[in-house]
Amino acid sequence: MIVLFTDFGLEGPYTGQVKAVLGRDAPGVATIDLMADAPMQRPREAAYLLAAYAPWFESGAVFLCVVDPGVGTARPAEALHIDGRWFVGPGNGLFEPLLRRAGAVESFAIPVHPGISASFHGRDLFAPVAAKLANGLAPASIGLAPAAPFRRPDWPDDLAAIVYIDRYGNAMTGLRAAALAPDARLAVGGHEYRRVRTFGDAPEGAAFWYENANGLAEIAVNRGRADGLLGIAIGAPVEVAAL
Amino acid sequence: MIVLFTDFGLEGPYTGQVKAVLGRDAPGVATIDLMADAPMQRPREAAYLLAAYAPWFESGAVFLCVVDPGVGTARPAEALHIDGRWFVGPGNGLFEPLLRRAGAVESFAIPVHPGISASFHGRDLFAPVAAKLANGLAPASIGLAPAAPFRRPDWPDDLAAIVYIDRYGNAMTGLRAAALAPDARLAVGGHEYRRVRTFGDAPEGAAFWYENANGLAEIAVNRGRADGLLGIAIGAPVEVAAL
Amino acid sequence: MIVLFTDFGLEGPYTGQVKAVLGRDAPGVATIDLMADAPMQRPREAAYLLAAYAPWFESGAVFLCVVDPGVGTARPAEALHIDGRWFVGPGNGLFEPLLRRAGAVESFAIPVHPGISASFHGRDLFAPVAAKLANGLAPASIGLAPAAPFRRPDWPDDLAAIVYIDRYGNAMTGLRAAALAPDARLAVGGHEYRRVRTFGDAPEGAAFWYENANGLAEIAVNRGRADGLLGIAIGAPVEVAAL
Repeated sequence: MIVLFTDFGLEGPYTGQVKAVLGRDAPGVATIDLMADAPMQRPREAAYLLAAYAPWFESGAVFLCVVDPGVGTARPAEALHIDGRWFVGPGNGLFEPLLRRAGAVESFAIPVHPGISASFHGRDLFAPVAAKLANGLAPASIGLAPAAPFRRPDWPDDLAAIVYIDRYGNAMTGLRAAALAPDARLAVGGHEYRRVRTFGDAPEGAAFWYENANGLAEIAVNRGRADGLLGIAIGAPVEVAAL
Repeated sequence: MIVLFTDFGLEGPYTGQVKAVLGRDAPGVATIDLMADAPMQRPREAAYLLAAYAPWFESGAVFLCVVDPGVGTARPAEALHIDGRWFVGPGNGLFEPLLRRAGAVESFAIPVHPGISASFHGRDLFAPVAAKLANGLAPASIGLAPAAPFRRPDWPDDLAAIVYIDRYGNAMTGLRAAALAPDARLAVGGHEYRRVRTFGDAPEGAAFWYENANGLAEIAVNRGRADGLLGIAIGAPVEVAAL
Repeated sequence: MIVLFTDFGLEGPYTGQVKAVLGRDAPGVATIDLMADAPMQRPREAAYLLAAYAPWFESGAVFLCVVDPGVGTARPAEALHIDGRWFVGPGNGLFEPLLRRAGAVESFAIPVHPGISASFHGRDLFAPVAAKLANGLAPASIGLAPAAPFRRPDWPDDLAAIVYIDRYGNAMTGLRAAALAPDARLAVGGHEYRRVRTFGDAPEGAAFWYENANGLAEIAVNRGRADGLLGIAIGAPVEVAAL
């Protein structure tokens, strides 16, 4: 299985061309669109989302991950084998939280051939590598050499910031709920939110936080939208306060 | 064939995870995205859309339907076999117009196991059931017990309201055109619209209603958009007047 | 392979129904969403996009192309075999730049049977033809008669206008970069843009044009958005000035 995690969108020309490469190079392998609206050009916020969603997928999955504002510059390109799943994409921090939480890691550099597009590495560089790995080919056999992964030691284990706002207006943080005290309050934009188990446990119209279905602390409103609340925006800082 | 009818969107993380479950539990079964932008959190409007679009699909299709503002509460979960098609989703009225128009109906309750997510029944409860039904398994063999379907006897046979606004700005009503007099006028927001056969039969820029390709009465503008017209919004009431 | 190029969107009910037809009539044939957000109801701008993206796809691909404001009127419906690829859709100019740049062309008229929907030819007329061609059936065997293609001799070889704005805010023109002098400047809305190789070659926040990964001249901003720049909108004229 190949899982796409990008900021490419689905309707425009980018994801379709990536899938054409995957269909050509890995025919018969299922492709899943996990996210095509990862935080645009923001590898930091995207990284904590990816780390929350990737473990839900089956072992053996190959993740093609592109949130890559530095495409065409000298930033590394890499393929990481982390706890049985492959992650292919730019070396810009996108894999930092995964690495931070990993058990077994193998790490490879993807050589950038001259002559490929400078602006569409998702199609021309990463998709062919992801396809070959999904076919079960060994890294050495497809030109990947062992290399230390790109790291961001300055990034935190959990990101106390809003990392995604979904179409319902719910705001995901980069904080794992399991890492928070059961009675922790989260503050964004000067307002504090208390924890509930799920939407129906809050009064209609009330804002709260809860552990979402992938383990992240998420701010929401029962039968309403959180994205209009003061300070709720991608990248906005979140403060954690125990009661 | 599994047909998805949800308000999950395609680009965010929800539809992809549902498809991962379907791919795991029903490998080789085709999945079609019918609508991922069904009226958000509005089972009533969504219900009349679903009833208009479902009959177009082949007999044997399994519809996975999630417009579910009550997820995690005690609302029922159900699987209905209606005229040769399966419908899996929440018991909140989403299937009421289908039931109202049905011939043969079998109805089953889906047990909610403790331990599944309280906020993502689409992935954790409904998708596995839809996959198994698409595999041809019998309801009894997958833990479904016969039960009366959830009903909304207070809802009408056709909904005199705007139920969907498409990307062209056309506004679908919940009224079947075949149930309207040929010369019926529709009034929304104080303005009346007359019927034409298709776009080219109205002057450029003129607003009208017509029978869309799935049988619903739809308000549109030839080479223009109807969504800016007075009163056109999801849920807005529509009045029917014969000439 | 069937490639979809439409203004239908993915989330609403249109693309899903088209795919249901393709799955029924051409089971096992891969379908790729190239663009579902082609310039809405604008065959002229869409035509130059299609001509830039289609050659990237493999020989033998069948393109189902629908940007069709005249659906239901007497405009022709056609299937064109251009340099080894099929293009199925309305005769409204959408294929003009492809024809202008073509080597070998065969051209066929698609008969419009009475009784199909007047408003959804994508599903009811074009998809069945595309599916049959993707199955390798000969045009004559599926009722297609040779006919001259619809032409727009008044349209230019390259379109000096904005034809698409992507989700990053980059603005594609209908001009092939290879047809421009290396030091050409592009002017839109009274502002001039110079050429760079790729994003990283411009200062942060600076606007420029570059050759995108499919050969079009595209206006962009390094780590910013071009779509807020003066005059940047679909259809806006572009002036070319050599230094």
